Amino acid sequence: MQGISFAQQVSIDLGERSYPILIGSGLLDDPAVYEGAKPGTQALIVTNTVVAPLYAERLAGVLARRHSAVRTLALPDGEQFKTWETLNLVFDALLSSSADRKTTLYALGGGVVGDMTGFAAACYMRGVPFVQVPTTLLAQVDSSVGGKTAVNHPLGKNMIGAFYQPQRVVCDLDVLKTLPPRELSAGLAEVIKYGPIADMGLLDWLETNMEALRACEISALAHAVKRSCQIKADVVGADERESGLRAILNFGHTFGHAIEAGMGYGAWLHGEGVGAGMVMAAELSRELGLVDAAFVQRLKALIHRAGLPTRGAILDENDNAGRYLQLMRVDKKAESGEIRFVVIDGPGRAAVRGAPDALVRAVIDRCCAA
Amino acid sequence: MQGISFAQQVSIDLGERSYPILIGSGLLDDPAVYEGAKPGTQALIVTNTVVAPLYAERLAGVLARRHSAVRTLALPDGEQFKTWETLNLVFDALLSSSADRKTTLYALGGGVVGDMTGFAAACYMRGVPFVQVPTTLLAQVDSSVGGKTAVNHPLGKNMIGAFYQPQRVVCDLDVLKTLPPRELSAGLAEVIKYGPIADMGLLDWLETNMEALRACEISALAHAVKRSCQIKADVVGADERESGLRAILNFGHTFGHAIEAGMGYGAWLHGEGVGAGMVMAAELSRELGLVDAAFVQRLKALIHRAGLPTRGAILDENDNAGRYLQLMRVDKKAESGEIRFVVIDGPGRAAVRGAPDALVRAVIDRCCAA
Repeated sequence: MQGISFAQQVSIDLGERSYPILIGSGLLDDPAVYEGAKPGTQALIVTNTVVAPLYAERLAGVLARRHSAVRTLALPDGEQFKTWETLNLVFDALLSSSADRKTTLYALGGGVVGDMTGFAAACYMRGVPFVQVPTTLLAQVDSSVGGKTAVNHPLGKNMIGAFYQPQRVVCDLDVLKTLPPRELSAGLAEVIKYGPIADMGLLDWLETNMEALRACEISALAHAVKRSCQIKADVVGADERESGLRAILNFGHTFGHAIEAGMGYGAWLHGEGVGAGMVMAAELSRELGLVDAAFVQRLKALIHRAGLPTRGAILDENDNAGRYLQLMRVDKKAESGEIRFVVIDGPGRAAVRGAPDALVRAVIDRCCAA
Repeated sequence: MQGISFAQQVSIDLGERSYPILIGSGLLDDPAVYEGAKPGTQALIVTNTVVAPLYAERLAGVLARRHSAVRTLALPDGEQFKTWETLNLVFDALLSSSADRKTTLYALGGGVVGDMTGFAAACYMRGVPFVQVPTTLLAQVDSSVGGKTAVNHPLGKNMIGAFYQPQRVVCDLDVLKTLPPRELSAGLAEVIKYGPIADMGLLDWLETNMEALRACEISALAHAVKRSCQIKADVVGADERESGLRAILNFGHTFGHAIEAGMGYGAWLHGEGVGAGMVMAAELSRELGLVDAAFVQRLKALIHRAGLPTRGAILDENDNAGRYLQLMRVDKKAESGEIRFVVIDGPGRAAVRGAPDALVRAVIDRCCAA
């Protein structure tokens, strides 16, 4: 497992906060991929109770070459634990082992572990180095780029957080083979997203390679992860602090977050909400006259082939659309109560805009499972 | 109260994060001083239950000209409430009023309010604008510059936080007249600090003007606040993220934090810990052969005239020095367990270095009240 097969690299260019994303097979315990990250006596691997038995020992083994003390902290698994209380377990572990401000945090897990570890690194002593080792496809294509870290608040998802960049991201594609098929599908939602908003060539490629991806063929995964990271890097590079352009990355997320929040965090996977949410956002784009019905149908078919839901959940039996609107108004992207939607402004191009409530209600009514 | 008397300005130059500190009389409710800060529909004034009845209404009145919704949140007063739980009250207030990411937070209070409001602003939706309106001398001379925000953790002070810059700082000197004398003295500790580490001319000036300062003469306060902010700005401008030089601002703080933590947060005011801590750090500098006994005596006399303690507290009847060392080893400035002391490397010049435990023990034994 020492050789780097299919090793690819995407460079995230953010001035003094620049870092590389390494993508390939057998990277997890290859000492070469950790060279160049900041040294420091202590390391804390933050993971969860599902991932820890699979990979924590291998990571701790390779890190023991770089740090004289390597500890592992396994958090409870799941979006419902993405809270301040869980985050505090990281601070407790750091402080009780007298971790200094040169201690490196390694996030070994999916998006929840990555978001919490990154936020812990951003806040501990006002900032310590951290390295992302994402073990889900979702985390590899989405959390690898952008520096978004956060925890949830009872009144909203990802409401408390920071923009904080890792030292590097290590995407070992082999670990995706242990991922439950449902989670692999959830990750594919974020890959698909990059097609309609930025690259119709990627949409073509996905239509040809969807089966290879779902079968975890390494070369297909490598292309999907690399291309997704590249597109996201281009967008984030132009707008690190999410003041404008970067918002297009939230295609499908406004509706998707409403589903996640309305069903209770953890019931729908994030990617599942994004899958159904992209269909709803595409349908809204069609209602606004920006794309035709064939485009919506094509996207919907691909989302279905990825093993994702294409219809939203019923969140309220009496006033379903009203409940969606209520939840979307507290979204971070809302401004003074006006919901901002990412729409497809012609294939391969996204835009952010408001929409009349009546139109949004019609889309929700049409796109939700009866 | 509309005219700006004695108005002074210090510019903090941090590239795109630059901001002004406005210093003068009658600034609190002068509309002119808030012009230029980012506009936005909502504003939340975060203050405490002591300051709120004195100044919140005046601030809310002037802010109503700039924001259509101005809310006030009064937190419990005191260092013991500088916790995540209290911080969460700010997030609750923001989320329950659907505050968007253009909402401005105004910190109206002392260092605790400023640190918590700044950290809340840094984290809420990954960053919203905030304005500091410090109402204590300590906050005006210390928290105004540097962007340090934080909350305490049961295992250490200011352990969880962020570097986050305000839009501007409004130092109204009139409000210092309502400050209890003990808190005014605590603020003077941070003013005195700038003498030995950077500017012996300031030390001379303080020896002449100590009575005027303690009597809250506006022109004396204006000079002390302005000069302190200038010196701190020079140091911070060269080292925003506290990688080296900036550490000299912690003169007296390593010993002082041990006193604060050892006595239980809130028993000693921060500035009181720094007062006694500066004497201990000066004595350590003398032990290291860097300054003479006359220098230590001169500094000690000035600290005494400021109404501050010049001897450390007894933290442990059996092994007092051991308890100090134990507490200082978990300080953020410690590296791999080695305590880093800020010492006076000749009058007006500071340095950061380690020291043998035996020497530190001797200093503690000599400088603590029996």
